[in-house]
Amino acid sequence: MMLRTHQCGTLTEQQVGETVVLNGWVQRRRDLGGVLFIDLRDRSGMVQIVFNPEFSKEAFEIADKSRNEYVLAVKGTVVHRDPETYNENLPTGTIEVRVTEIEVLNVAKNPPFFIEDGIEIDESIRLKYRYLDLRRPEMQRTLMLRSKAAKIFRDFLDNHGFIDVETPILTKSTPEGARDYLVPSRVHPGEFFALPQSPQLFKQLLMVGGLERYYQIARCFRDEDLRADRQPEFTQVDIETSFMSQDQLLTLMEELVAKLFKETIGVDIPTPFQRLPYSEAMGKYGSDKPDLRFGLELVDLSDLVADSGVKVFANVVKSGGQVKAINAKGCGTWSRKEIDDLGVYAARYGAKGLAWIQMKDGEMKGPIVKFFSEEELAGLKERMQAEEGDLILFSADSKKVVADVLGNLRLKIGRDLGLIDDSVYKFAWVVDFPLLSYDEEEKRYVAEHHPFTRPKDEDLEYFDTDPLKIRAQAYDLVLNGYEVGGGSMRIFQRAVQEKMFNALGFTMEEAQDKFGFFLDAFEYGTPPHGGIAFGFDRLVMLLSGTTNLRETIAFPKTASATDLMSDAPNEVSPKQLRELHIDVTYKPEAKQAKEQA
Amino acid sequence: MMLRTHQCGTLTEQQVGETVVLNGWVQRRRDLGGVLFIDLRDRSGMVQIVFNPEFSKEAFEIADKSRNEYVLAVKGTVVHRDPETYNENLPTGTIEVRVTEIEVLNVAKNPPFFIEDGIEIDESIRLKYRYLDLRRPEMQRTLMLRSKAAKIFRDFLDNHGFIDVETPILTKSTPEGARDYLVPSRVHPGEFFALPQSPQLFKQLLMVGGLERYYQIARCFRDEDLRADRQPEFTQVDIETSFMSQDQLLTLMEELVAKLFKETIGVDIPTPFQRLPYSEAMGKYGSDKPDLRFGLELVDLSDLVADSGVKVFANVVKSGGQVKAINAKGCGTWSRKEIDDLGVYAARYGAKGLAWIQMKDGEMKGPIVKFFSEEELAGLKERMQAEEGDLILFSADSKKVVADVLGNLRLKIGRDLGLIDDSVYKFAWVVDFPLLSYDEEEKRYVAEHHPFTRPKDEDLEYFDTDPLKIRAQAYDLVLNGYEVGGGSMRIFQRAVQEKMFNALGFTMEEAQDKFGFFLDAFEYGTPPHGGIAFGFDRLVMLLSGTTNLRETIAFPKTASATDLMSDAPNEVSPKQLRELHIDVTYKPEAKQAKEQA
Repeated sequence: MMLRTHQCGTLTEQQVGETVVLNGWVQRRRDLGGVLFIDLRDRSGMVQIVFNPEFSKEAFEIADKSRNEYVLAVKGTVVHRDPETYNENLPTGTIEVRVTEIEVLNVAKNPPFFIEDGIEIDESIRLKYRYLDLRRPEMQRTLMLRSKAAKIFRDFLDNHGFIDVETPILTKSTPEGARDYLVPSRVHPGEFFALPQSPQLFKQLLMVGGLERYYQIARCFRDEDLRADRQPEFTQVDIETSFMSQDQLLTLMEELVAKLFKETIGVDIPTPFQRLPYSEAMGKYGSDKPDLRFGLELVDLSDLVADSGVKVFANVVKSGGQVKAINAKGCGTWSRKEIDDLGVYAARYGAKGLAWIQMKDGEMKGPIVKFFSEEELAGLKERMQAEEGDLILFSADSKKVVADVLGNLRLKIGRDLGLIDDSVYKFAWVVDFPLLSYDEEEKRYVAEHHPFTRPKDEDLEYFDTDPLKIRAQAYDLVLNGYEVGGGSMRIFQRAVQEKMFNALGFTMEEAQDKFGFFLDAFEYGTPPHGGIAFGFDRLVMLLSGTTNLRETIAFPKTASATDLMSDAPNEVSPKQLRELHIDVTYKPEAKQAKEQA
Repeated sequence: MMLRTHQCGTLTEQQVGETVVLNGWVQRRRDLGGVLFIDLRDRSGMVQIVFNPEFSKEAFEIADKSRNEYVLAVKGTVVHRDPETYNENLPTGTIEVRVTEIEVLNVAKNPPFFIEDGIEIDESIRLKYRYLDLRRPEMQRTLMLRSKAAKIFRDFLDNHGFIDVETPILTKSTPEGARDYLVPSRVHPGEFFALPQSPQLFKQLLMVGGLERYYQIARCFRDEDLRADRQPEFTQVDIETSFMSQDQLLTLMEELVAKLFKETIGVDIPTPFQRLPYSEAMGKYGSDKPDLRFGLELVDLSDLVADSGVKVFANVVKSGGQVKAINAKGCGTWSRKEIDDLGVYAARYGAKGLAWIQMKDGEMKGPIVKFFSEEELAGLKERMQAEEGDLILFSADSKKVVADVLGNLRLKIGRDLGLIDDSVYKFAWVVDFPLLSYDEEEKRYVAEHHPFTRPKDEDLEYFDTDPLKIRAQAYDLVLNGYEVGGGSMRIFQRAVQEKMFNALGFTMEEAQDKFGFFLDAFEYGTPPHGGIAFGFDRLVMLLSGTTNLRETIAFPKTASATDLMSDAPNEVSPKQLRELHIDVTYKPEAKQAKEQA
């Protein structure tokens, strides 16, 4: 075959006069009365190639039989186009290649969709024919972006002394093992490996092992219930360090993230990032992953309305709940219907109703206004900075419900009002997460992050007095309403670990049963350590400007965890199962009926 | 805690006079009459730190309680040592740090082995306490070498336009699926994923998808029967390209490998590498992964001995076998016992006996000499270039057994005679592998590599006449007797694929059933493509100078595919199995007896 000398998309007027060989796919062919124009496409882009019996009768005749997606090798001369035929949509639009030799490397059936950007076709078709979907320039750009992003992570971490260590994928199932994918062992009958939900244990063991700085772009697995934005296997940039403070680590990671955004999409990200305590994030934005590109903050009114005539408000405050509101600037003219629709939306997040006040015609209007005193209304107006044309939306409920309802209303209204600038990337660290929460069902404290998350030194005293007050040395990196990374400093000293297990309701001995070799390891001189993991798929999604994780993965699975291309998972042969010493207990109804008959 | 300002091993006389903070582990402590010397170790190396009540009484007293592997943070001043106390074994041996402040970051139990290089301890203990084993400098060096090797691969491939694409780990089980690890699906009862034995299908689909140049440092899985030098999960550098010839690819890969060896261990590897046809490798070295660091080549004597009085030889030649020999230079004085031992060794590889001739006292000696004519002996002597003191070892059998026997004898004698220079890295490409072999049991041709390996163009005609004569566009990279990489150009045109399937004994329709979507994909304009995969674990093993793959892996499994540290695989709870819709069919005898009682 004729091997390429150049790539289609990178030819320029520099090559005019040169003889070149190109290899690529037929994007489009046009027959203009005995002259044949083909747009030839490869990974680099397209160029127009021209067949004319005057250049070569043979080449013309062969080319004439080619169709879309045929694979061609052509030899020809680069020439200027006539200026009136310049194609401004094509970087190579001022030149073309006059072909004298052609080789049809392969033929092609007509593809089920056009190989071009912006096609509107059901995603399931694209996934079934992923090998054709990947030919589309936008998919290739995304995969190249992903590759480049990985490279930037690696180069940075490498330059800062991090060692790339591969941790096992065939690991041990944990006692809680829910959501673990299991792998039966053929050589150890009745025993199973588990696929890791993260390399957490291994990265901490590498710190025990004195590696000091580790990273890995690691595949992780979670057998989740079906959710649109989750993949059963996903990729995280996994990082762990010893002998660093939380602040040192976060500062280093900021530098890394800024570099990533600069070198992939050319965006300058100012550092340092905002450090937002969890309590403030929840208080102001009703979310631990707030979108900080706009205001519309939640305002606490509990004190103002505690004794008001709005009985619901007063009662909620009395029983320990909250009354908060947001001020939807300029929505004071919304119709009753529009406000009712907001109420329906709020109900999704647990709102039992949606109280509101319109600032209209110089007055405060709405069903609840009459139950407030003048003084209360004045206070409310002031605290909400309410002006003519505003709409104030209230939520009165438990702290959690108020946050959910107003946090989500905030996002919806922010989007609806166009308050969100899509060209802005607003990072923040959410810090000082609570170490523990109280599980009402189990009647005990549970770890918010995991039982090895280190409490803040100054909060250690609360283990004995008020465990819910203990803040963790844990942090999430949020970007535009997404959590793109998270981690913590880890407990490394036995005394603290004992306090933690005590708070969780088990003794060191019970913990030993549960965590076994991992706790053993910690007895041999574990250094102070901590780390972070970035959600790589999500970061690439945000960098590439899509909202669908699947666009960032070459061969993704659907929300129901199937591969539409290969049809995995599938049934396997009884022989395979026998060799693995397992049997399938599930019987489809048809099969059951047959067996019973 | 006091955070480090410097690393232990990188302190030099440059820092004399400076106050530094170090974090690290106690390697050793010596109490010299009221002055305490501790070697403090971190990833970078060690430095001596000194505690003296004169510098700080408090620090001295705290340090006095420390033991091996305690984790310390110390602050002190770097000073020159007295010249008579220089430690030449330590890069920091001319300085020490006088400590004024100390913090014990963590205590440590006494480790089960010393944290130092060259310990002689059962590997199973090291694997059980891998987190301590990893603290040993030689393990850290190997992991850093591995990380660096990965970086060199990535940088090179990245610079040459290869895109790093992650392919799925949860894939489809193939019909042959032997040695596939399976993963039951929770959300699709009765269905299974399979872990990939390699990304082969996906990388070819990426070529169909127009990516043109792909690479991935990919985890692969094979549920092999137990073998000392295999791991159930292993890593390969997986590469695939479109629009390149075999020769272009191999040349590029040579450049890559030379760079790898230069930048990791400083060795210059001359390029181009020798291209050794498979037939020549088997003929001269009895192996398709010959160690080319020494000669001792196999010499074919079949024609010479076809009519000789050595009946065994004559008969073997008559029935289509071979008679070959190697000349063990200078072994003519070996005792009968030593030669008999060689016979025992040869028997392992299928030799029914080991004929030999000694060149001793100016004569040819040995039991078979008398059956040869003078002329035959002269011819033999000449062809074997036999001189006084040599030992000629014969094998007469099928081609395969002769290759096995003499190929292995060659290696053994090469080692025994010290013919192998361990400082030499001798690469070669073994090329022109046979495309097909004949399976005597199944009475049909089978693919030597896989059914998508491209035949050499000039051999296509043999599909109709002599399929065994067809050579494949397949190649292995061999280094010092190891296969470190291998690959092939792939069939991309339907006509050739049909010929291949025909030769394998099935129609295109039957193939369709078997390979399904993969063959579909090939209908839509598949470019010419091919690739290679390097065995990353083995390359790192050779680079680090060990002979044990496990030394190159942070958390390896044993030859019986268990993780001695975490005790994986293990039994899981009935609840987990229920959720996965599977049951274990294997019952240990004790359990069976109990159930029957």
